[in-house]
Amino acid sequence: VTDFNICLSSIGTKNAYAVVIGRKHVINYCVTHFVCLFSCHKLQESLLSSNSGYSNYRGILNWCVVMLVLSNARLVLENLIKYGILVDPIQIISLFLKDPYSWPALCLIIGMISFWGVFSGCVSVGGVMALGVFTVLFLKLYSYRDVNKWCRESRRAKARTLSRPSVHKANGTAGYTHVNYPGNLTHRDIYYFIFVPTLCYELNFPRSPRIRKRFLLRRLLEMLFLMQLMIGLIQQWMVPTIQNSMKPFQDMDLSRIVERLLKLAVPNHFIWLIFFYWYFHSSMNFVAELMQFGDREFYRDWWNSETIPYFWSNWNIPVHKWCLRHFYKPMLVKGVNKFTAQLAVFFMSAFFHEYLVSVPLKMFRLWAFLGMMAQIPLAYFVGRFLRGNYGNAAVWMSLIIGQPIAVLMYFHDYYVLHYGNAAEGVAA
Amino acid sequence: VTDFNICLSSIGTKNAYAVVIGRKHVINYCVTHFVCLFSCHKLQESLLSSNSGYSNYRGILNWCVVMLVLSNARLVLENLIKYGILVDPIQIISLFLKDPYSWPALCLIIGMISFWGVFSGCVSVGGVMALGVFTVLFLKLYSYRDVNKWCRESRRAKARTLSRPSVHKANGTAGYTHVNYPGNLTHRDIYYFIFVPTLCYELNFPRSPRIRKRFLLRRLLEMLFLMQLMIGLIQQWMVPTIQNSMKPFQDMDLSRIVERLLKLAVPNHFIWLIFFYWYFHSSMNFVAELMQFGDREFYRDWWNSETIPYFWSNWNIPVHKWCLRHFYKPMLVKGVNKFTAQLAVFFMSAFFHEYLVSVPLKMFRLWAFLGMMAQIPLAYFVGRFLRGNYGNAAVWMSLIIGQPIAVLMYFHDYYVLHYGNAAEGVAA
Repeated sequence: VTDFNICLSSIGTKNAYAVVIGRKHVINYCVTHFVCLFSCHKLQESLLSSNSGYSNYRGILNWCVVMLVLSNARLVLENLIKYGILVDPIQIISLFLKDPYSWPALCLIIGMISFWGVFSGCVSVGGVMALGVFTVLFLKLYSYRDVNKWCRESRRAKARTLSRPSVHKANGTAGYTHVNYPGNLTHRDIYYFIFVPTLCYELNFPRSPRIRKRFLLRRLLEMLFLMQLMIGLIQQWMVPTIQNSMKPFQDMDLSRIVERLLKLAVPNHFIWLIFFYWYFHSSMNFVAELMQFGDREFYRDWWNSETIPYFWSNWNIPVHKWCLRHFYKPMLVKGVNKFTAQLAVFFMSAFFHEYLVSVPLKMFRLWAFLGMMAQIPLAYFVGRFLRGNYGNAAVWMSLIIGQPIAVLMYFHDYYVLHYGNAAEGVAA
Repeated sequence: VTDFNICLSSIGTKNAYAVVIGRKHVINYCVTHFVCLFSCHKLQESLLSSNSGYSNYRGILNWCVVMLVLSNARLVLENLIKYGILVDPIQIISLFLKDPYSWPALCLIIGMISFWGVFSGCVSVGGVMALGVFTVLFLKLYSYRDVNKWCRESRRAKARTLSRPSVHKANGTAGYTHVNYPGNLTHRDIYYFIFVPTLCYELNFPRSPRIRKRFLLRRLLEMLFLMQLMIGLIQQWMVPTIQNSMKPFQDMDLSRIVERLLKLAVPNHFIWLIFFYWYFHSSMNFVAELMQFGDREFYRDWWNSETIPYFWSNWNIPVHKWCLRHFYKPMLVKGVNKFTAQLAVFFMSAFFHEYLVSVPLKMFRLWAFLGMMAQIPLAYFVGRFLRGNYGNAAVWMSLIIGQPIAVLMYFHDYYVLHYGNAAEGVAA
């Protein structure tokens, strides 16, 4: 259209009579002067040829999203056709009530007056939660002890170096109305610290000016909805997939094991992502808003990680902060070199991962421990050979594939231990 | 690490004696002056909170790609486990030799001395190819006739307007050593036009300076490899999926039909993408390079289309150019308004789509025709309500979903027609 219009308009302005003598003559004019109809080809390369210099493929990203949505829509539909609706909120409640083993865990937690205890119940789930609460409490109390020890040392140091000029005003917290060392040793202060979503004790936490009711309500609704969603996805998508994976595992049929692993990876990854948002955004922000705790940095932009260490130091900020302040830095101060200190942090993290899984399942299998320790050679490989988007893709790949491997390993061992040689059966 | 290092280095430069008195005193110094260990929280929002102002999610795009690769890797593996290897190059050759109906089509094409004839053979495939070749030839000869008619009119117009000054030098083709009207009427010229990958005749095509041997070889290898890949994917992935779709179609089980449709959409779309590259990039560039044809714009950036018309006017440039030059513009010149002219172009395109499918299948079902005509309300909807990336996603969606609907429709009718009430059977 355009070149013909250009043609028409150029004639219109240059030779006003052309319009008067009619369309028939206009086309004749164009034809006569080879203006547009004759030359409709020009010397040029195809866009996809390497020497065309073309590089705008933003449409491809939309293509990826559309393909992903459609592929998963099909999986959802296939699942519904095959299994019907398996989501059953009553099942969860019955797990809490029927199992007699639930009571010790529950009692332990109620004994601590911890609200997390409300969620715990059946042996494994309750066990993980009880151990989780104890681990969190241990880390918090360790931090509390450390900081108060530093305060005592500081008082002593001050007494000794009284002659030196104080640089107290130079740092950020100066000017803030704050509590000083012995003044913080109150029940109110330690309970506030225990309920607040951080593992690092501080005498004067930053406080948000007020409780935003709309913010609080939105986080609460997210918490309730995502909780239901996770339970539903586990019942509808994870459990049948895991159950279907037992036969290939028994037969040690490698290609089918890989197929099952890839099939399990998708729901497992979605549930992990939902869990991340539910725990680190909705729940922590809810508690923080309620307690007017100002520091909401519970995670950083781990989704852009281009290296494995970047992921580990950005996805769980409370734990990362604790490790840095109470484990890594003190080691450096004691003269340990950086690499050894980093290894020690990973080792401790691997220990806690294993501890949180082995004890509730009553199986000491080291899969979680090995999974964490495998991060070290993986980090070396990714950091050495992959950059930018390739590094980022490798981090995602390790998350998407690594977790279901560990899940299947534990499930397989748990199944073999409890259901022995029975070929068919429902586990968990 | 960083703030402790900053702490250490600031001490190092400001108070040189701190280094001398050892690490124990360094930590005491830090503690004393609240430099880094005490304040490890600050007032801030979570990144995912709407008022954090954060918007860097480029990692999510890598996530999409990784998820897509893994999902499809699983589908490939599942397919191999279920069906084994179905790829069989011999099957294609036997189709060419066994079927007696192949000869008329083959003879017709051989009669035209067209190299496309080599590929044709069995009724449907050969029929489509023979009809395709005839359609292309028809469009080319129509263009040849038009241009030569314009040339005659131009000569007559020139004779009449000899007194007016010539603007011949002003346009781009001036200075190029070119053939004039009656000089182009040679066998050599018309055969060159027939073999060259364009539908629009021109007296002086732009020519590339030389045949690049490496370029030619790369395109040839692409052609051979992608041809094999397409045949393999059809045998391994399309045929079993289509065969499995017959049962739900017979039962009119809607949810299963949708599931089958989504399952078919993935291989169909991949094959279409490969076909696009194979035909519009590899094959056309191969022929163009061989014949030193300079204009390689066989497609533009349709993958970034944000509207339906943009897609249709950019994915198949030879046909688009022909429609514009020999159908749409002449209609405008005759006084038809733009909208009617656009409708007429779509109508003609729909007719040719139907013609290329109905005749070889010997079924007049209008699905292809309706598929093309459905683009008009779709274009209106997308253009009216969706912008930018949403528009682009809608275009992709229509491509990915629209094609397999038409494929299943024809296959269903073909199956019912030829295999009647037989519940099980292999079609095509």
